[in-house]
Amino acid sequence: MLLEDELLQAVASPLELVQDIGTHLVKSGGKRLRPALYLLAAHSGPVFERPKVMPLAAAVELIHMASLVHDDVIDHADTRRGTITANAKWGNQISVLSGDYIFARAFSLLAANEYGGRITGRLAELVCDLSSGEIMQNRGIYQASRDVEEYYDRIAKKTADFLEICCEIGAIISQMEENSIQGLAAYGHAIGMAFQITDDLLDITSDEKKIGKPAGNDIRQGIVTLPVIRALETSPDSAELEHIVTTRAMTDEQVARALTIVRASDGVAFAQARADAFLENARESLPAELPEHIARAYLEAAEFIGHRDF
Amino acid sequence: MLLEDELLQAVASPLELVQDIGTHLVKSGGKRLRPALYLLAAHSGPVFERPKVMPLAAAVELIHMASLVHDDVIDHADTRRGTITANAKWGNQISVLSGDYIFARAFSLLAANEYGGRITGRLAELVCDLSSGEIMQNRGIYQASRDVEEYYDRIAKKTADFLEICCEIGAIISQMEENSIQGLAAYGHAIGMAFQITDDLLDITSDEKKIGKPAGNDIRQGIVTLPVIRALETSPDSAELEHIVTTRAMTDEQVARALTIVRASDGVAFAQARADAFLENARESLPAELPEHIARAYLEAAEFIGHRDF
Repeated sequence: MLLEDELLQAVASPLELVQDIGTHLVKSGGKRLRPALYLLAAHSGPVFERPKVMPLAAAVELIHMASLVHDDVIDHADTRRGTITANAKWGNQISVLSGDYIFARAFSLLAANEYGGRITGRLAELVCDLSSGEIMQNRGIYQASRDVEEYYDRIAKKTADFLEICCEIGAIISQMEENSIQGLAAYGHAIGMAFQITDDLLDITSDEKKIGKPAGNDIRQGIVTLPVIRALETSPDSAELEHIVTTRAMTDEQVARALTIVRASDGVAFAQARADAFLENARESLPAELPEHIARAYLEAAEFIGHRDF
Repeated sequence: MLLEDELLQAVASPLELVQDIGTHLVKSGGKRLRPALYLLAAHSGPVFERPKVMPLAAAVELIHMASLVHDDVIDHADTRRGTITANAKWGNQISVLSGDYIFARAFSLLAANEYGGRITGRLAELVCDLSSGEIMQNRGIYQASRDVEEYYDRIAKKTADFLEICCEIGAIISQMEENSIQGLAAYGHAIGMAFQITDDLLDITSDEKKIGKPAGNDIRQGIVTLPVIRALETSPDSAELEHIVTTRAMTDEQVARALTIVRASDGVAFAQARADAFLENARESLPAELPEHIARAYLEAAEFIGHRDF
């Protein structure tokens, strides 16, 4: 079965409203980066059994979808990827419950397909990471923290742990050796860090046409990312930047001025260098014994993540 | 390890805030009815291994706690069992995420202790039931539905499925035969139905001193329960009752008048008879081969549920 069909089947429900919401979320699309990475890992070892592989791909994307539904409630987001959010369409209450339903459907798929304690445990820990990472982010807003380690911890929980686990469970499913599983997990973690730093950079350097949301969105929400943390340390206008990013109801002019300060600092180059270092680390983590065409796919994925401008 | 210690250990987190919220929820108490019923079932078969049994007791209570956290967000509840709710103390956003965290900790416990696909699957389906049951209830408010089947379906998803699963997984863990597992599951479902009907009856017949919340709370929230459904069919004041229960911002006087109408009707006796029938059904479902002292504990549980006034 194709991934999209697996997803639609997973959100099927005798309750029409529940099914409508699930279908809306599946059809709203997304890059499907997480199942794609998992599937690449599932092709990396000696064994590939499609019926055993596909339900886990769906479970991974369901967990991502459920966490986005709850994030959109928390952020009061009206649209995502140009489509109306569940909370805008059905309200917060139904959206909280639908997110719970979709999380549970993911674990139901894991159980029905007997994926076992290791894989189920990693995905349960992932949901712990996603929620505690979001709690960290939520508590730290408008505080102009300059703690780089805290930033890395936050983006690990938000993104890198997820990509790590996708690679890890794909490697387990394809019956790779333990050190190869760990190598792919390390690769996933590193590209996840690079992916999130790049995402945070785009919020500083891009414009609404390219990323589908206004630049400076993080600053406006009080979320301090790596280029801003660096600018707070090195910019001659650091005090002004700190004043803006700790202002709860900042004006469009203040957001624009903060962007100007960060862009004029070495924050962008600094963050880009960190993302590049993580990508280098990702390449070095790849197990030596991967088939050549598979190794190439991992390198292309790293390349794509490092140089996307959308 | 004692259940309370298992629970505190399960909500331990390196993030202080996450741990604070988890500890607050554990210490807020509750009847611990679900793990108690599970533990009774775990004592009902030929095998009882404490280290294998206890983490599942904690997982069951964590799922209940997480669902209450989300319910309190949805209902804008300020207190539960006389203690401040997580949403009143930390806000809705943190509470949604904390609920997710606690759900995930439950599945993490299941995975770490290798409970396997059958038990994990039943608990995942339970979370689907709890959330879709709450969605049903949420959609049906202020509509004065007279659909008894819909009411039974709703309370099954909200309560009876949970008690059923507690009995079922306890019976599985204690290695009972399949027909005994099914018998205990049926017992759990039936006492769950009786438990929820009794709960709904108390909201009509009791007062704030006994149940810790004002009577007529369901009516105020637009939730139509069995005695009200019956009164809507049989009361001479049915039209007035329907008008009140479909009013979104009803006054205290309207709630009091609705209570008077329901109490004067045969709704209370009707619902009590249904609860009694479920309790009778529960007693009949008990497997014949239970040890006598265990069978007595199940009968006492049924008795307790049928005649509680708090």
